[in-house]
Amino acid sequence: MVKQLLRNHSSVRIYDGTPISKEIVEDLIATAQMAATSHFVQAYSVVWVTDEKKKEKLGLLSGNPRQFETSGGAFVFCVDFKRLQMAGKLENVDIIADSAENVLVGVADVSLFAQNFVIAAESMGYGICYIGGVRNKPEEISELLNLPEFVFPLFGLTIGVPARRNEVKPRLPVAAVLHENEYNAQKYEELLPAYNETLEAYYNSRSSNRKIDNWTKQMADFLIEQRRPFMNDFLARKGFNWK
Amino acid sequence: MVKQLLRNHSSVRIYDGTPISKEIVEDLIATAQMAATSHFVQAYSVVWVTDEKKKEKLGLLSGNPRQFETSGGAFVFCVDFKRLQMAGKLENVDIIADSAENVLVGVADVSLFAQNFVIAAESMGYGICYIGGVRNKPEEISELLNLPEFVFPLFGLTIGVPARRNEVKPRLPVAAVLHENEYNAQKYEELLPAYNETLEAYYNSRSSNRKIDNWTKQMADFLIEQRRPFMNDFLARKGFNWK
Repeated sequence: MVKQLLRNHSSVRIYDGTPISKEIVEDLIATAQMAATSHFVQAYSVVWVTDEKKKEKLGLLSGNPRQFETSGGAFVFCVDFKRLQMAGKLENVDIIADSAENVLVGVADVSLFAQNFVIAAESMGYGICYIGGVRNKPEEISELLNLPEFVFPLFGLTIGVPARRNEVKPRLPVAAVLHENEYNAQKYEELLPAYNETLEAYYNSRSSNRKIDNWTKQMADFLIEQRRPFMNDFLARKGFNWK
Repeated sequence: MVKQLLRNHSSVRIYDGTPISKEIVEDLIATAQMAATSHFVQAYSVVWVTDEKKKEKLGLLSGNPRQFETSGGAFVFCVDFKRLQMAGKLENVDIIADSAENVLVGVADVSLFAQNFVIAAESMGYGICYIGGVRNKPEEISELLNLPEFVFPLFGLTIGVPARRNEVKPRLPVAAVLHENEYNAQKYEELLPAYNETLEAYYNSRSSNRKIDNWTKQMADFLIEQRRPFMNDFLARKGFNWK
């Protein structure tokens, strides 16, 4: 049942090393492409890293060497306006890719596409993990994969036969995410401490890596500093100016 | 079969008006929440617009009045760092939400979440349509839904029992989207004209709204001007500065 598949998702970080075939990769890509896309721009490209040296380097650059090593397939999902630029050129038009709007469009396009890819893969029994770590070294990864102007790496993805499955982590209560007719921030005052208790109980009782932690503490620790402050300039260099 | 469900997606733009129940909405949200989320930030909120007057206004502001009128449910999916700000406050920390990086994180988070919502809904027989048009009037929609600082509307979504289904539109060839080990722009010179032919044949033979058109022409027409140039300033006003 589809809903049960979605409900059972948890990231897999260790695989058994079985490689995934080209036939399956192409099938997953074709399925992913059926996701909705803004004005049909299809602003995504995927680099499948099959070269062992490149894969190792990608694992190091994104801070996940072990995971890449055991995976059956390693991918970098990119926002892509280069293909749109070339489409424009075929019509003698210089397209304008600049502005925050096109970054929103590109990131949403890639993400809807990627989530379809993930669900199709999970429905076949594979495990996956998104790797935001490719944004730690976006220049180096762009060079490694020869990404041109108007293309930037959004996230990596490993896929493979799971060697270990993690437990499903409790999410925020639905009431914290769903608002009716207008946004209501006040309810968080009750909901967040209650959610902290849920998560504390989970961390304290799961089968491995037990710890004392909760959501508000994690988030405060994570966002106390500016995350990846180089990203603005990197995107500008890639052709997506924010000014 | 999950893959077949994903392969059969096409947007639905006219529904039969049957309303969707609160129980189903909450179930879809809880399922959507199981999508991967960057560092567990869960940076999404959804406003479900049940008030008839607000729903009508939302349809007008986003340029889709008919679709909102016949839908069984109308939603605005938002990037949300407000809840994270409040999580920080509970820990006496002023979080830093600024920078392009957090917009990338938020947009990806919302999109993975939304695509789970969509797939769960489609698996129950509902049709859906993403509405990028909420970004035509983001200030007005923020006011309508009382969206605070650090929250902005990314896309709308209508859902309902389809009154008409559209044919599935052919996507780019897999080879145009999938690269191996390095990005290869040169192949587009052959692949894009071939794709134009595929799409021309589709537009010329589909059951309704036949036309003479192709992909490169559509894209050139669409991107010849800067899309939503106000978006940079709007995001800055919402607390996401790009400087």
